[in-house]
Parts: sequence; C-alpha cells; structure tokens
Amino acid sequence: MIRKLAVLGVGLIGGSLARALRAAGAVGEIVGYGRGFANLQQAVDLGVIDRAERSAEQAVSAADMVVLALPVGSMADTLTRIAPQIGAQTVVTDVGSVKGSIVSAARTALGGRFPRFVPGHPIAGTEQSGVGASFAELFRDRRVVLTPVTDTDPDALERVRAMWQAAGAQTVSMEVGHHDEILAATSHLPHLLAYCLVDTLASMDDSRVIFDFAAGGFRDFTRIASSDPVMWRDICLANRPAIQAALGQYRRDLDALMDAIGRDDGVWLLDLFARAKRERDALNGGRK
Amino acid sequence: MIRKLAVLGVGLIGGSLARALRAAGAVGEIVGYGRGFANLQQAVDLGVIDRAERSAEQAVSAADMVVLALPVGSMADTLTRIAPQIGAQTVVTDVGSVKGSIVSAARTALGGRFPRFVPGHPIAGTEQSGVGASFAELFRDRRVVLTPVTDTDPDALERVRAMWQAAGAQTVSMEVGHHDEILAATSHLPHLLAYCLVDTLASMDDSRVIFDFAAGGFRDFTRIASSDPVMWRDICLANRPAIQAALGQYRRDLDALMDAIGRDDGVWLLDLFARAKRERDALNGGRK
Repeated sequence: MIRKLAVLGVGLIGGSLARALRAAGAVGEIVGYGRGFANLQQAVDLGVIDRAERSAEQAVSAADMVVLALPVGSMADTLTRIAPQIGAQTVVTDVGSVKGSIVSAARTALGGRFPRFVPGHPIAGTEQSGVGASFAELFRDRRVVLTPVTDTDPDALERVRAMWQAAGAQTVSMEVGHHDEILAATSHLPHLLAYCLVDTLASMDDSRVIFDFAAGGFRDFTRIASSDPVMWRDICLANRPAIQAALGQYRRDLDALMDAIGRDDGVWLLDLFARAKRERDALNGGRK
Repeated sequence: MIRKLAVLGVGLIGGSLARALRAAGAVGEIVGYGRGFANLQQAVDLGVIDRAERSAEQAVSAADMVVLALPVGSMADTLTRIAPQIGAQTVVTDVGSVKGSIVSAARTALGGRFPRFVPGHPIAGTEQSGVGASFAELFRDRRVVLTPVTDTDPDALERVRAMWQAAGAQTVSMEVGHHDEILAATSHLPHLLAYCLVDTLASMDDSRVIFDFAAGGFRDFTRIASSDPVMWRDICLANRPAIQAALGQYRRDLDALMDAIGRDDGVWLLDLFARAKRERDALNGGRK
C-alpha cells in the first residue's frame, strides 16, 4: 500500500499508472505535477489525481512513492530539484525508455539517496499522449523492466515491484545496458524508421496523392509516427550509442536489399522475405 | 451481370472478389484455377468458386470475365496461355500491385485481343494469403485503381468498373506509370522496410530477447512482413525503377537522420518528428 504517491508528469503513462493503482485500491493519496497546466487540471477533473501541485518539490514532499513519468530529457533537472525532499522512506522510480543515462543522472542528482532510486520501464503505451489518453488497463499483463544496480536498496526495489504488480503488470529485471540495447532494436529503431518514412513521403512531389492512397498496411506501419516528438527527441539523444548501432546495422541490411533489387536477384529477395515472414509469423504465436 | 467468371489465383484477393460478387448477386457461375490444389479444393469446399478447373485455358473458356489474381511474376505466362481463349466478348483484368510490366506483358501475350485487357489494382488486402483468408467485405469502400491505356476498349473498361462497384469498391483511373510510382512509395517501400527490419532484428545476437520484448508498436510496424514472399519478390522485380527511386530517397533521408543523431542535434530531430507527426495525424482525419 502506497500512502502518498507523487506522479511527476501525468500523461499517458503516469496517468494510467495512477488510474490502475487507484482501481486496485493500492494507493491513498495521489498528487501530480507537470509543466502543462491544462493537462494537470484535466487530470484533476478526471479524478486521475487528487491534487495538482505547483512544483515538483511540493509534490514529492512527504510522499512515500515518487514516479517520474516525464520525457527522458527532463529527468535530470527534476531529480536535482526533488533530491532534498527524498527522505529515508521515499522511493523514487521512473518510466523512461532509456535507462543508462537516467541512472547516471539519478546517481549525480540524488547522491547519498541514490539507493532509493529504482530505474524502471513499462513495455506498454500507445501513440497517444496526455492524461486524456490514459486508462487503468494499460499495464495489464504487460511487462515492466526494472534495471536495479548493485547499490539499489532491495526494499525500494521490492516496493516498486509491488506497485507495478498492483497495476496488473509483470516485472522482470534486466541489466541497464542490456535494456538499452534491446529497446534500441525493438522500439527506438522502428519509431525512427516510421518517422523517417512519413517525412520522406511528405517531401515527395506527389505527397497528397500518396497519402490519399495509403492503405491499411501503411497506416499500421506509420501509426507510431504519431508519438510525442519531444519524448522521441530525448530518447534519441539519451540512447545514442545503442540507437546508432541498431540504425547502422539496419542501414547495412537495407543496402544489401537495394543491391539485390539492383541486380534483379529474385532468389536473394525471396529468401529474405521468406525468412522475415517466418520470424514475424512466429511472433504471433508468442506473447501478445 | 457476369455470366461466367474465371478467377485465376483464388487467394485472398481473387477469393474475396468471388465472394463479394456472389453476395451481390452479380455473377452466374464462378470457376477457379490456381497452382495450389489444396487451396483450390478449399475454395470449392467454402463455396467461393463453383468449380475448379485443371488448367487456366479450361477455366477461361467461354468466360465473359477473367480475373488474374496471381503473383505479378506469373501474369505473363498465364496471359500467353489463355490468349487463344479470349473471345470478342471476353474481358480480362488483373489485380497486380504493379501495372507497367503487366501492361507490357499483356500487350505481347494478347496481341490483337489486348484492347479487351483492363489493368486494375484494388487498394485493399491484409497480410494473410490464401482463400481461407478471403472475405466478401474486403473491398467495401476501398478504392480500385484502373489504368487503361489509349487502346483499351471502353466497353471492357466499363464492365470491369461495374464489377468492382458490384463488389462494393470505388474505381478511380490513373496513368500506368503514375500508379507504379505512387504504389512504390505508399505500399512497396513500407513492405520492404518492414521485411528488412524483422530480418535485421532476427540476425542480432539477442534476437530471442528482442522479439520477446517486442511491444504493440513493433507488432503493428512489422505486421506487413507476414505478407506472401513470392508476391513481394515479384513486385520488387516488376516495379524496379520506381522502387529504387523511393528506396534511394528514403536512404538519403535516413542518412540525414543518422547524421543528426551523430551530432546530437536535438533541434533537427524535434523538427523532423513534429513534422512527421503532423502529417501522420492528418492521415487519421482522412479516408480510412
């Protein structure tokens, strides 16, 4: 049971977590803070949070659980500001899609209180943003990756694990760097490719006709290009080495595909498409 | 009203068209032919076709409408084989995703009967294949692009238009080369990028963990990589120049994105993501 939960950034993820914990009866009071006043007011109106605070410092004061659900690039500043309020009983966690840079920032910002910080990342979301898009079931049967380090306090880790389980999620542990590599491949790379594709098509002479004739496949493929631009800029900058490695490998593979098309190599193309189809079909048999 | 419809290739598209025309009461007899015996038998068992024929020649004999719903690479051979059966009243059309190479093949194969050939392409489909995946509503409110050339017979064109309208679709006309450029951008390019992404990830050391952590965004993004490999090999080979142009432009844009990440250029990245999001969001307001 969380007595006072402070959600910093009451958007899709922060709002959904607040809703889920409320629905589970796992939390007493929920206070929120965020830079967008209209969004915070909406969070109060929707009953997602009990109260909006005027500063991050006020929000975390006397909280036993603090969740940072801000864009990755805002984490360091916010951690620095709230550091003085982190008491012996306060647990701090985050939901960022990148863990290495956030762990470094937290270590610097929190100093001696760093062991009470538990890095986390729920593998859930939609392409929408803001508290209006949040819903209590977002994390149900989804996984939350926790990336504790050697000096992470086991009690703090256990509390964060219990929080996510109360929200309906399964928690798994992963090493920080491994998380960042896996997510670069499975999430960051596809988002960049989708953003790039929409922009490439938009810059073509025939872009109006092209978008007009976009069918279901294209729509699904580019749905993630509706995601929040600030969030994705921050992820690119925060997970640069892993993203560069994944993008580099993709580009080499794309070059090989272009070469095969250039030399009319139907055997090579059929082999690639059949191999990729097998892998993708296998995914449908697995975890939803 | 079509008296005898011959569907060559009774898969997702051919089967769905047969079902739609039957449901609309727009066809008398439907015969089918295709290379896969099990699929043809299933088409008979499901009532999608009345009868399976042992050859394309037999199937088109005395048909007033012939629909080629085969992979693009099989069109030329099939057109050559059926050419002697194309009578003065027979209309031939196709559903291929590439039109230029098919029009050339039809001109060569059909000779003096070429004016009875109407090139067509329904902008509809799913990532599934085979008659088992077909359904009568596939074309409802979707568009079918017809690409008649100067010597296409207006009566044949009108009959094909009426057939698709009976199946619930809207028909639009487009110039052959324009169709191939538009589809290269909006359909062929995304399919290639999705196939390539799945293969890139599958070749990574951590591929099992990567696919295990693939969330909804990745699944939507790569759904089209479950499409039929033969069909897509054929499309690559048949629409090579337009696909090379689209892929080349995409690659240049991807290089610019990689450069921006490399120099930590958050302004450039935010600008790209915001621009792409605007375009993609606008798409949601448009045609479904």
